[in-house]
Amino acid sequence: MYNILEQIQKPNDIKNINPAQYKELAKEIRTCLIRNVSKTGGHLASNLGVVELTMAIHLCLSFPEDKVIWDVGHQSYVHKILTGRKDMLKNLRQHDGISGFPKMCESDSDAFNTGHASTSVSAALGYAFARQLQDKNNRVFAVIGDGSMTGGMFFEALNNAVNLKSNMVIIMNDNNMSISRNVGGMSGYLTKLRTDDRYRQFNDNVKGAIKSIPGIGDSVVEKVSRSKSSIKRLMIPGMMFEDMGLTYIGPVDGHNVNELVKTFKDAMRMNAPVVIHVKTKKGKGYRLAEENPSYFHGIEPFVVKSGELRNKTSDCRPTYTQVFGNKICELARKDESIAAICAAMPQGTGLTDFAEEFKDRFFDVGIAEEHAVTFAAALASDNMKPVVAIYSTFLQRSYDQILHDVCICGHHVVFAIDRSGIVGNDGETHQGIYDISYLTSIPNLTVMAPKNDVEFENMLEYALYQIDGPAAIRYPRGKVYDGLHEYNEPVEYGKAEIIQKGGKIMLLAFGSMVSKAVNVCNMLYDECGIKATLVNMRFANPIDYELIDELCRTHDTVVTLEENILSGSLSEHIASHLMWKGCAHIKCIPVTLPDSYIEHGAQEALREKYGLGEKDIFDKIRGTIS
Amino acid sequence: MYNILEQIQKPNDIKNINPAQYKELAKEIRTCLIRNVSKTGGHLASNLGVVELTMAIHLCLSFPEDKVIWDVGHQSYVHKILTGRKDMLKNLRQHDGISGFPKMCESDSDAFNTGHASTSVSAALGYAFARQLQDKNNRVFAVIGDGSMTGGMFFEALNNAVNLKSNMVIIMNDNNMSISRNVGGMSGYLTKLRTDDRYRQFNDNVKGAIKSIPGIGDSVVEKVSRSKSSIKRLMIPGMMFEDMGLTYIGPVDGHNVNELVKTFKDAMRMNAPVVIHVKTKKGKGYRLAEENPSYFHGIEPFVVKSGELRNKTSDCRPTYTQVFGNKICELARKDESIAAICAAMPQGTGLTDFAEEFKDRFFDVGIAEEHAVTFAAALASDNMKPVVAIYSTFLQRSYDQILHDVCICGHHVVFAIDRSGIVGNDGETHQGIYDISYLTSIPNLTVMAPKNDVEFENMLEYALYQIDGPAAIRYPRGKVYDGLHEYNEPVEYGKAEIIQKGGKIMLLAFGSMVSKAVNVCNMLYDECGIKATLVNMRFANPIDYELIDELCRTHDTVVTLEENILSGSLSEHIASHLMWKGCAHIKCIPVTLPDSYIEHGAQEALREKYGLGEKDIFDKIRGTIS
Repeated sequence: MYNILEQIQKPNDIKNINPAQYKELAKEIRTCLIRNVSKTGGHLASNLGVVELTMAIHLCLSFPEDKVIWDVGHQSYVHKILTGRKDMLKNLRQHDGISGFPKMCESDSDAFNTGHASTSVSAALGYAFARQLQDKNNRVFAVIGDGSMTGGMFFEALNNAVNLKSNMVIIMNDNNMSISRNVGGMSGYLTKLRTDDRYRQFNDNVKGAIKSIPGIGDSVVEKVSRSKSSIKRLMIPGMMFEDMGLTYIGPVDGHNVNELVKTFKDAMRMNAPVVIHVKTKKGKGYRLAEENPSYFHGIEPFVVKSGELRNKTSDCRPTYTQVFGNKICELARKDESIAAICAAMPQGTGLTDFAEEFKDRFFDVGIAEEHAVTFAAALASDNMKPVVAIYSTFLQRSYDQILHDVCICGHHVVFAIDRSGIVGNDGETHQGIYDISYLTSIPNLTVMAPKNDVEFENMLEYALYQIDGPAAIRYPRGKVYDGLHEYNEPVEYGKAEIIQKGGKIMLLAFGSMVSKAVNVCNMLYDECGIKATLVNMRFANPIDYELIDELCRTHDTVVTLEENILSGSLSEHIASHLMWKGCAHIKCIPVTLPDSYIEHGAQEALREKYGLGEKDIFDKIRGTIS
Repeated sequence: MYNILEQIQKPNDIKNINPAQYKELAKEIRTCLIRNVSKTGGHLASNLGVVELTMAIHLCLSFPEDKVIWDVGHQSYVHKILTGRKDMLKNLRQHDGISGFPKMCESDSDAFNTGHASTSVSAALGYAFARQLQDKNNRVFAVIGDGSMTGGMFFEALNNAVNLKSNMVIIMNDNNMSISRNVGGMSGYLTKLRTDDRYRQFNDNVKGAIKSIPGIGDSVVEKVSRSKSSIKRLMIPGMMFEDMGLTYIGPVDGHNVNELVKTFKDAMRMNAPVVIHVKTKKGKGYRLAEENPSYFHGIEPFVVKSGELRNKTSDCRPTYTQVFGNKICELARKDESIAAICAAMPQGTGLTDFAEEFKDRFFDVGIAEEHAVTFAAALASDNMKPVVAIYSTFLQRSYDQILHDVCICGHHVVFAIDRSGIVGNDGETHQGIYDISYLTSIPNLTVMAPKNDVEFENMLEYALYQIDGPAAIRYPRGKVYDGLHEYNEPVEYGKAEIIQKGGKIMLLAFGSMVSKAVNVCNMLYDECGIKATLVNMRFANPIDYELIDELCRTHDTVVTLEENILSGSLSEHIASHLMWKGCAHIKCIPVTLPDSYIEHGAQEALREKYGLGEKDIFDKIRGTIS
């Protein structure tokens, strides 16, 4: 099937390939990527962009002794192909198939698990110091995209890199794109490095001029050579890195294997961390992806020829993301104080329309979740109404800022937490299954989740206009639940909503679990003749204990349902409350995800596997009442 | 008492002071600082260093319209003096006295609450954009020390500052010191800016040389003037900031009020963010503090003449910090794989001896908790045994890294979490009362707390040698508890230790609460004749449910005691467990801190105020059993 690629069956096999065949190999890798990802879905454009870069790394290193840390890690498919996992690509990101991210448990050539951005240089430094302390001589590379360079952790690591007195290579994969368009001063700086030849021209002229002056020229040249920093300042464009005490090389053409190999080998001779600035093109070699790299960043299965998605759905329901995007625009039209903030995810969070319509009030801060939150706190301090839209998993980065900068003072910041619960194919590094736990451990923070699209809109409006402190709304990835529209009581602070009044058993469901609870109630009625009470909890903080206590008088079983791990969950809060109240007659059943990490796979399949399937819930309840 | 300072009774009064008296005013402010802090304790050296800087800011701004964000905030005493709080300094950091940090609720001249480092530029940007969006014209200043500049958030904010098209002033207060000695590439860079005249000398020479060449010279000079960035690169030392798109001015003498005012006024005319590099001397004007700024960074009440602490204690018990420092050295002598990591706190975490004895294996990463944790994860991946020593409150910054980089993969990183529980006079931004909640929401993370000094040593050894995954040990600020030495069963995974076997009531105490529980048990026996069972829990994850379930057969009351807020606490985990088990006969009583923020004050007084006093616990238990 592949002429050359078939010769690569295990790590380091690439070293046996004839250099004359590199071009053909790159082409075959791209074919392999497109063929597989078009069927499985996945991160295509970024992998197409790093084909030659990954080949060059593999030509210079030996696996598994040498270590490469792939920042974020969604660009590691080529690395997987070159380490003997080509044939597993057909099950990429599928349950029981290989992960779309580096996984130490998948291959010993994967040096470090990644998923969240900006961690690679920290990890590489750890490996480099471990090598040094153990007198080993393996190589350490970090590969970081320019998008990830907006994350503060990258800077923290860079600031510490100067202490390393042995080699380490930091490859800046600069495609002038993170997931979306880049932002900020660092991006501007890189663009300048990438495009501006004036540094070198100017430098050549000055040197020429200096050298041509007899007497004076010599003395200056002498000064120049003594003043090492200053001459570097003239000669080297990557002065920002040099200022930090690092050596900078570049920019280098990221699609020229030989040039890359030569540069890497040069860099590997230095006894210090070296930053290599590599220019690549996202989507390279697949015209459609080159033209629209954002579309092909993370894509569902598609038709190679047209780029169209394979699974056209007749389901015309919007996603929660879309509902958020529309509602926030609607509200912002009437209220100039609303501002929206995202961290490098305008599309992902549904804010592209807002960004266009309310340019001045839209802030894409880059991959900088910490800054996003504290920035919002100050906007709120000065009469603005900031809405921070960040995925559940990435908001983990802001735990301290939410507590320390927003909630201690009670600033009115609204958190729109997309991708809460099981997210699916991205797997364990991306699951949004901890937020109820970490958010309800923060005093003063109101935490809500809607049962359906309409309630989501109402909650957003409620959070902006009826609450004057910090408030978070969590909602799942994917299409909205558009049932239960007839249940539409106004949102009231800390109050739950009764969907169905019954007896004996009450189901207290939060957010995405309300729709499932409806079906469980139906099963209980159909199969056991029990009409259970169903409560849409709405608030995880504060919890409507008044209602729960009242219902406890007429019920004997409390089932709590939520898409979150058990520890720190709503279920725990409610069960412990009942225990402390001394509700001895009540039987409590928690329906949550287990206290563990959950791998990749289809959303609904994972929910079912981990106990959130309707049938399992029903069986669990029936088991305790019979 | 003060000639000139008495004329300053409210914000902006400083503007009425005759400039000829600025020197005298500065002197009086220093006297006021030393006089008060020598009695109350507090952050002295940093405040002595910013007297003229704060005066200059107050001469340029109007409060409360204009906003100053004090990064970290412990250097805001002078600001407090100049905004009418001079007479309140006598109760600084005391319960019911003013806070040692800026507090919006204390004065409308305090624009933003701070406490943790590196937040100021994010907050200032929020204020600046809020001003712009609301067509206001107030001023926004951020004052950030060079130590805080190692935190990634600062970089994230800086990266976003370039988008601001109106004025904002970022004052880099460069005293070449954070709390301790500075670290990293950024520090080296600042030192270069501060001390290196060669840039300018070189620059003058080149310009001279170029100008002196007829013909050639002119053409080069012309090129130079066209190539704006390049000429800047030659002329301006703060090129790193310029590279980020910001204007840099400096360095400026931070003890010259007139020069500072002139510089600020220049900077305020620019329609963009401006970075002003101000050089100050920590401890300025008080010889002892100038000589030993670390000692006078945060100090207990002291004798002005000698610098000696006033409250010499006869209590010769070591602190937990000291026990940690000694034990980790002892272990490291026998084991070359042990490495220690701290974030700008070698003294505070007790690692100064380790740093000296094991220079190669000691990593002070600066105020960079995120990097610290991921760096440790990689060290662990390559056969090292990293111990990360970070205060409970600052470890909040690493929530995502602990979960994502350490615990998903189960890397063997040991977290030594100092200052857990109530920390005292630093107040609400520094309390370590959330860690049980946020740490137990992370699957795979073992969480322990020792009852006394010996157990602490055992746990440290246990975490390093008997556990092969991530483990955290939390311990309080202050002197160790050195009782219960006779109870010294080997630490066993997830197992609690029975201190006293009784009946009816069991007390399940965690960490610092074990010693209190002993006294509560005594009170129960003396006053009620009840011999309660006392269990030292040792583990908050995993919890010894086996023992608890067994004891539940012979007891009817479970009292859980811990120094943490209620939500997400060990108490909640245990109570909900018992509820789900259906332990109907059991009465559960949680003894925790409330779900709120806790102000400054003496440690023990705060514990008593918030329900952790022994008498209150006893009363609470007696109330339920009678």
